[in-house]
Amino acid sequence: MATLKDFSQATRAEVRAVREVVAALHDQLVAWNLVMWTAGNVSQRLHSADLLVIKPSGVRYEHLTPESMVVTDLQGNLVDGAGSPSSDTSSHAYIYRHMPEVFGVCHTHSTYATAWAATGKSIPCALTMMGDEFGGPVPVGPFRLIGSEAIGAGVVDTLKQFPRSPAVLMQNHGPFTIGRDAEAAVKAAAMTEEVAHTMWAAQQLGGVIEIAPDDVDKLNDRYQNVYGQH
Amino acid sequence: MATLKDFSQATRAEVRAVREVVAALHDQLVAWNLVMWTAGNVSQRLHSADLLVIKPSGVRYEHLTPESMVVTDLQGNLVDGAGSPSSDTSSHAYIYRHMPEVFGVCHTHSTYATAWAATGKSIPCALTMMGDEFGGPVPVGPFRLIGSEAIGAGVVDTLKQFPRSPAVLMQNHGPFTIGRDAEAAVKAAAMTEEVAHTMWAAQQLGGVIEIAPDDVDKLNDRYQNVYGQH
Amino acid sequence: MATLKDFSQATRAEVRAVREVVAALHDQLVAWNLVMWTAGNVSQRLHSADLLVIKPSGVRYEHLTPESMVVTDLQGNLVDGAGSPSSDTSSHAYIYRHMPEVFGVCHTHSTYATAWAATGKSIPCALTMMGDEFGGPVPVGPFRLIGSEAIGAGVVDTLKQFPRSPAVLMQNHGPFTIGRDAEAAVKAAAMTEEVAHTMWAAQQLGGVIEIAPDDVDKLNDRYQNVYGQH
Amino acid sequence: MATLKDFSQATRAEVRAVREVVAALHDQLVAWNLVMWTAGNVSQRLHSADLLVIKPSGVRYEHLTPESMVVTDLQGNLVDGAGSPSSDTSSHAYIYRHMPEVFGVCHTHSTYATAWAATGKSIPCALTMMGDEFGGPVPVGPFRLIGSEAIGAGVVDTLKQFPRSPAVLMQNHGPFTIGRDAEAAVKAAAMTEEVAHTMWAAQQLGGVIEIAPDDVDKLNDRYQNVYGQH
Repeated sequence: MATLKDFSQATRAEVRAVREVVAALHDQLVAWNLVMWTAGNVSQRLHSADLLVIKPSGVRYEHLTPESMVVTDLQGNLVDGAGSPSSDTSSHAYIYRHMPEVFGVCHTHSTYATAWAATGKSIPCALTMMGDEFGGPVPVGPFRLIGSEAIGAGVVDTLKQFPRSPAVLMQNHGPFTIGRDAEAAVKAAAMTEEVAHTMWAAQQLGGVIEIAPDDVDKLNDRYQNVYGQH
Repeated sequence: MATLKDFSQATRAEVRAVREVVAALHDQLVAWNLVMWTAGNVSQRLHSADLLVIKPSGVRYEHLTPESMVVTDLQGNLVDGAGSPSSDTSSHAYIYRHMPEVFGVCHTHSTYATAWAATGKSIPCALTMMGDEFGGPVPVGPFRLIGSEAIGAGVVDTLKQFPRSPAVLMQNHGPFTIGRDAEAAVKAAAMTEEVAHTMWAAQQLGGVIEIAPDDVDKLNDRYQNVYGQH
Repeated sequence: MATLKDFSQATRAEVRAVREVVAALHDQLVAWNLVMWTAGNVSQRLHSADLLVIKPSGVRYEHLTPESMVVTDLQGNLVDGAGSPSSDTSSHAYIYRHMPEVFGVCHTHSTYATAWAATGKSIPCALTMMGDEFGGPVPVGPFRLIGSEAIGAGVVDTLKQFPRSPAVLMQNHGPFTIGRDAEAAVKAAAMTEEVAHTMWAAQQLGGVIEIAPDDVDKLNDRYQNVYGQH
Repeated sequence: MATLKDFSQATRAEVRAVREVVAALHDQLVAWNLVMWTAGNVSQRLHSADLLVIKPSGVRYEHLTPESMVVTDLQGNLVDGAGSPSSDTSSHAYIYRHMPEVFGVCHTHSTYATAWAATGKSIPCALTMMGDEFGGPVPVGPFRLIGSEAIGAGVVDTLKQFPRSPAVLMQNHGPFTIGRDAEAAVKAAAMTEEVAHTMWAAQQLGGVIEIAPDDVDKLNDRYQNVYGQH
């Protein structure tokens, strides 16, 4: 099996930098209330080699350090690190193999996004920030057992059907989000929980006003293409 | 295009002071759970020149410093600062141009205020603190696409119809609040979310008792005119 | 008007100690999410003189210090301190004058307690911790305008009707709580919000099982008389 | 009555280590919003002697230190420590006496778990993390008055009926959780609140999709036996 020594100096430098990034983003999961105890993880794919950096399994967030992050290949095989990789690594790896434009993946069980997932309902688009960030409703993916490639395949299939959404709510499970890097994936996870919570609360009031598809298109186009960053 | 050097020493000093204030108030948005990731911004208009200080676009709150705040004129054109101004700057600028008594503006997507906004319903007045702070229900403004003066105009039109309210819930979007300075606008944003959350919870219980308009008038008069500060 | 110099050295020492206690308890209001911005206050009555120590009006919690706490007599007249006393001081003072066993008062607009108050419904007793702490439902007091003794009188009348409860939800306003000192009053405020939130959530599920009055009596007797502290 | 001096040096060393662990885990109760004021406690049983380490009664979390933790025998009699043991000690002790594989117990009144408890309803299993951690619904135990062995007996009876669940919601009271050590019990308390909150929110949306018992079995088997840690 490969070890980090088999890779170039540039890759080893990229691993060091990405370990810092991925460790710091796990703190953001806690800071924005997206996770409980250890139930969430972030990864980033390298640009210089077919590797990814991800959270180790079963370590509490307060004990995470850049050094404790683990490196695997795109099959999820351990390449470097003291712990074993997160049990969700095979799902992350599947996404990277099948969506070459994706370099960051985040998975949480954040409360309101997961509540929608437990009902198998997509989140209706009634917020301008949903038009901006998701380009429509937040879609639901299929129920899949944990522990095979089935989850990754369900994520990829759903995201390809809804190409403007960086998030999918896997039924009975929770959200997976993607991005051009790990920070974008974590931002998408934060936005997913925020719109899930807001739309959940709106549903309880009754009388939600969905945004016309035409206006959703305009919002999304402007946010993604004209403005760039919010 | 003007730069800060074109302005008086007094204005440059005011800019320095206001940058401190506006940066610190963004920390308050996070501390009181009014924002997620980057989805909210605060500005303050200067007294010594037709300028405003606002958050830069796309910067995470933890990275904000007084120096990173940007200065624009009241058309939203950049006058000083390394980043580009928040994408909501044209709305802030429109409000300042049309409401000369306003020197602070805050915009968030805070969860419960935005949930009410997604249903197009104003928040009924059943709390003495609503009488105090809003002088009645928190009003809803029209649906408007992002990226033109339409949002600012919708905010101003609604606030002029409800002159006792420092807040308007823009339909499908979120709250905008105003004040005599940025701190007052942020306080109004905090109070808007608090009454939105409380009244939302009360609605779920059923049987909300609204306060008689006459009593709302007495509460508001005393709070705004007799007592001054709470 | 009296000043602190008119009082004994023992009283001046007690004032110093109580200022520390009351300032620190305002931090607890923030830490346990019982307040938003400035909407809550705590006071403690002195044992050595007919004085009370309370929060100054209109000061944000992060700026509070022991020195900034103000001292008033039991009519609410300022005796010592740079700011003016909280606008709720007359209510605190009324309670101390009419309930001589009370040496601490806390008032908040905490979210779920205030939601119950907006519906005029007392919180049904379906939690053993309600039996322990409140000896039954958390009672509702009358609607009263702010700015006179009417609020204090409404609080006292209701608490005398429900002598086991340290809390009353003033209709359309929020909770007032009492205790043998300020810490006990703040603990009661925290417990009031917690049971308000929990029972609110239980109501949404439906099928709440209230505790039999006989069992409530047993819980309350044991907690208050046998065990002492939890 | 025994004192710590009656025990071996190894036991005294284990007490020192466990006091550190148990004190630190009380901070986790606060960090993950599982408790309000003092309403929750954690204990760990020793391996070298029939003793347990638990929170002292009536001390606020911010004042807890390893030294303030108290040691009792498995009848709940004080063996070491300045304060008196938590009023829930007899329940913890009963659990240890009747479930010899358990070395950690946690009790909270966490909001949403306690809301389910107030309705006497178990939490339906519609989340893969419930399959993983609980192997089915989170069960409800009987209503029991505080202050005797009745609570501990109710906890043990229910957990023996649902051997895959580390948690029981005692009716009208709140959750008790167990584990191979105190950390595992606190993790179970955190997971209990998280699934209680998520499933509560899902119920409000309506149309919850429960997971087929067969799939629950597969999830639980994999998580507990194949993967080990998450």
